[in-house]
Amino acid sequence: MEKRRTATWRVRLRSVIFLSDSRVGKIFDIAVIATIIASVVVVMLESSHAVDSMLGPILRVAEWCFTIAFLIEYILRLLTVRRPLHYARSFFGIVDLLAVLPAFVALLLPGTHYLAVLRLLRVLRVFRVLKLVPYMKEGVLILEALRASRRKITVFLFAVLIVAVILGSLIYVIEGEENGFTSIPRSMYWTVVTLTTVGYGDLTPQTGLGQMLAMAIMVMGYGIIAVPTGLVTAEVVSQSFRLRDQRRCHECGRTGHQPDSGFCRHCGNNLDRV
Amino acid sequence: MEKRRTATWRVRLRSVIFLSDSRVGKIFDIAVIATIIASVVVVMLESSHAVDSMLGPILRVAEWCFTIAFLIEYILRLLTVRRPLHYARSFFGIVDLLAVLPAFVALLLPGTHYLAVLRLLRVLRVFRVLKLVPYMKEGVLILEALRASRRKITVFLFAVLIVAVILGSLIYVIEGEENGFTSIPRSMYWTVVTLTTVGYGDLTPQTGLGQMLAMAIMVMGYGIIAVPTGLVTAEVVSQSFRLRDQRRCHECGRTGHQPDSGFCRHCGNNLDRV
Amino acid sequence: MEKRRTATWRVRLRSVIFLSDSRVGKIFDIAVIATIIASVVVVMLESSHAVDSMLGPILRVAEWCFTIAFLIEYILRLLTVRRPLHYARSFFGIVDLLAVLPAFVALLLPGTHYLAVLRLLRVLRVFRVLKLVPYMKEGVLILEALRASRRKITVFLFAVLIVAVILGSLIYVIEGEENGFTSIPRSMYWTVVTLTTVGYGDLTPQTGLGQMLAMAIMVMGYGIIAVPTGLVTAEVVSQSFRLRDQRRCHECGRTGHQPDSGFCRHCGNNLDRV
Amino acid sequence: MEKRRTATWRVRLRSVIFLSDSRVGKIFDIAVIATIIASVVVVMLESSHAVDSMLGPILRVAEWCFTIAFLIEYILRLLTVRRPLHYARSFFGIVDLLAVLPAFVALLLPGTHYLAVLRLLRVLRVFRVLKLVPYMKEGVLILEALRASRRKITVFLFAVLIVAVILGSLIYVIEGEENGFTSIPRSMYWTVVTLTTVGYGDLTPQTGLGQMLAMAIMVMGYGIIAVPTGLVTAEVVSQSFRLRDQRRCHECGRTGHQPDSGFCRHCGNNLDRV
Repeated sequence: MEKRRTATWRVRLRSVIFLSDSRVGKIFDIAVIATIIASVVVVMLESSHAVDSMLGPILRVAEWCFTIAFLIEYILRLLTVRRPLHYARSFFGIVDLLAVLPAFVALLLPGTHYLAVLRLLRVLRVFRVLKLVPYMKEGVLILEALRASRRKITVFLFAVLIVAVILGSLIYVIEGEENGFTSIPRSMYWTVVTLTTVGYGDLTPQTGLGQMLAMAIMVMGYGIIAVPTGLVTAEVVSQSFRLRDQRRCHECGRTGHQPDSGFCRHCGNNLDRV
Repeated sequence: MEKRRTATWRVRLRSVIFLSDSRVGKIFDIAVIATIIASVVVVMLESSHAVDSMLGPILRVAEWCFTIAFLIEYILRLLTVRRPLHYARSFFGIVDLLAVLPAFVALLLPGTHYLAVLRLLRVLRVFRVLKLVPYMKEGVLILEALRASRRKITVFLFAVLIVAVILGSLIYVIEGEENGFTSIPRSMYWTVVTLTTVGYGDLTPQTGLGQMLAMAIMVMGYGIIAVPTGLVTAEVVSQSFRLRDQRRCHECGRTGHQPDSGFCRHCGNNLDRV
Repeated sequence: MEKRRTATWRVRLRSVIFLSDSRVGKIFDIAVIATIIASVVVVMLESSHAVDSMLGPILRVAEWCFTIAFLIEYILRLLTVRRPLHYARSFFGIVDLLAVLPAFVALLLPGTHYLAVLRLLRVLRVFRVLKLVPYMKEGVLILEALRASRRKITVFLFAVLIVAVILGSLIYVIEGEENGFTSIPRSMYWTVVTLTTVGYGDLTPQTGLGQMLAMAIMVMGYGIIAVPTGLVTAEVVSQSFRLRDQRRCHECGRTGHQPDSGFCRHCGNNLDRV
Repeated sequence: MEKRRTATWRVRLRSVIFLSDSRVGKIFDIAVIATIIASVVVVMLESSHAVDSMLGPILRVAEWCFTIAFLIEYILRLLTVRRPLHYARSFFGIVDLLAVLPAFVALLLPGTHYLAVLRLLRVLRVFRVLKLVPYMKEGVLILEALRASRRKITVFLFAVLIVAVILGSLIYVIEGEENGFTSIPRSMYWTVVTLTTVGYGDLTPQTGLGQMLAMAIMVMGYGIIAVPTGLVTAEVVSQSFRLRDQRRCHECGRTGHQPDSGFCRHCGNNLDRV
């Protein structure tokens, strides 16, 4: 009897915490999201000297309240979920833990509690709460496009790394330490800053030869920008073509219709008639 | 009798102000546009110390003349338009108000009268006056492409925001205040400056670890550039495909067929049969 | 008899100067190109203090020799060409004049003789000489793609201009003169530097509000980059599709074949059989 | 008999060095790669003053060990390969030589031994070892896309060069030496920095006219970014279209059909008939 009641209590709590279909569950989710954003704002305010000197104690109390609230929520989730280990190792399980950990780690390593902003990732649940399904779909499409170009992008990054090492060493030999290029890693940093067209200007070539190399790297970076853009674009284009490809005409067997077509564009057959 | 004459007067004034088909209406519109550009130039000149010290009083008089002229025009439009409330809440109604407001607000809040440049938006009417319809169509096409990728871009911006908060906090913890990263919001500013490849260089990482993180962010920014470009490109490509085929179905009158379609995708009619 | 000989002389000279099919014409063209590059290098060397203090007099003599040579060539072209006025107003006629003018203008306005580098444009003739026809075709394709997106790009530039004026005024009001934003034009310069992701860093926002606006402008710039890229890409893609479109199947009348197809992909008919 | 044994020895050594199918060959290859990465890390550490003052002698000894190891490997490869001259002139032959040369050149020209990082290129062999064939294919695809746009990109770079010379001279005349634009080559450097949106900020226009030119160059750079991106994207798109269709003609065995083709474009055979 006692066990039964506990089970019911777990089930009811689980439905509040994990499902947002019920009214209570939805209110709970919105409250959690508001808390997350408030707690991230508190961490940000704390990092600012001007604000911290005024509101310091209040902010610290608020942060601990948030942390304890998130800790309780994490424990409740662990207790009520069907497969605690599976949850603990899932993306949101790890994110829920990371929302709590930094505050405790900061007791040993001061300064690290700012990493509590990682709890912002929990806001991704907002998609579930607000039923932003079409937005979620678009996000999935972008991720799919990126995943489909995954291998090409890996090859690309590998090439960029090799280029950065070699060009960084070259500029290090050309410019030398008297112009700020004090080591190869630092010169690699400059190379990446230049190749990606960021161009901070904290390190700039001073010799004529160095400037010529810099110009070559910039123009190269220009061309290199074209590559990932081309890959992702081609992926998105072919993806949107693939979305068109699904229906097959029952008369002539051809695919490649647009989603709003009613009739086969090859033989005029009604696409919806089986 | 009196009322009749007023109505006629309103109708005639309305045709001058709102329609540019008539000769007088066209001259009126061109005069308004010339006035807008002149007034924006006056505001710009006023903002320059060197010019203001020489021509200050003249510029101020000129600006008030422009403001009063625009005020009179705004009141006339309100008086003569058929549905004043509808106009007042339309895009151009708000722009017309914003052309006048800053001068008066500046009496209370000095400095804000520079916002009078917002009246430049009124120049968008130029498209109507100069019959730049094809150019307008292109603008509409661009806006359509942007609107069609609206949701994807929202998701994208949301992701960029979360990335900026998390990476900003990370660099804040790594670099700390002694290297200029004085708060998390300021570090987020640096993250966005880096991620978008703007790279002012007012804040730069000084530690080795910070520079490595910066390199990762730059290369990430490189990849991230690819995403909106890919989305908009795919949209423009599919748009231009849809527009390219000029054939019109003789049965249902719809266009937008693909160039190699033989049959209407709306009614299945043979496209080549007249 | 005298007149006849002059005519022959003109014809022969014209064939040397204007045509590169003959051996002499080709040698003449290559000599001209070598002279152009040498003269541009001389102008560049002259601009450098270090080199000019050493070789100053020699460089000046060399430049005058080049100028006189180009002047003689220009006069010869004018004398021998069939329609001198038509030539003088053509692209290369103006470029040939600009190769000579700066040296003489510099007698009145010192410093302007550096503009003699405009003679570099004459090197475009290299395409004719070296029979770089396929390269020329690619250049023409790029120009066509740009010309086809001409109107869209005009609308785009117009929008960028309006955005720069409004955002420039906004940042001017927010940041003010104490942070370096000394006038609206200068603030517009900052806006364009930020929007295009160039980011010199000579002007940077110092206030929190200014940095928030800067972040918004950067992310906007990110999205804006996508627009011209999308337009040009769509143009190049549809151009390469259009190249495929030319042959029409004699059996089924469909187009859209790839350039190396021998048979219709719709009905299997031999495309080359009429 | 003696000769036979030598041959066998050569054959066995060759199979270890050049083939990675055998177990020993694979272990050898992984060892070489580990050595390469270790040696590049050593060169990088050496370039850093802080590390070099501590570990200097050890690093120098390590570098010479690596160099001698690579030298021995290079000689072994030369001795065992079937066509030594062919190998010596191949890409990897030159890379293997460049892995060794800098250490010896540095005896004459101090500082150049940092170029030993070129041995990093040897890591490209990793693709063969780790059987990263699909990744290699992607790399080949990227290179193909770049090669197919080769001529367009050459024309593009040529145009950028001419634009840089002319705009560089223009800004040199406008800004002059008092604003840091001390010579035309240096002004060209600024032009490229601006056109590619790198924007170091070590040189910035100070005059109003110079800033207007800079704004024009930036917006131009914006448009110019669109061109290579468009070219590469169009190439990748058409490539992925060509690759997408896996159908093979049963008559002539060719692939590369478009997804909606019904007939082989090479022989006109019905693609759907087995």
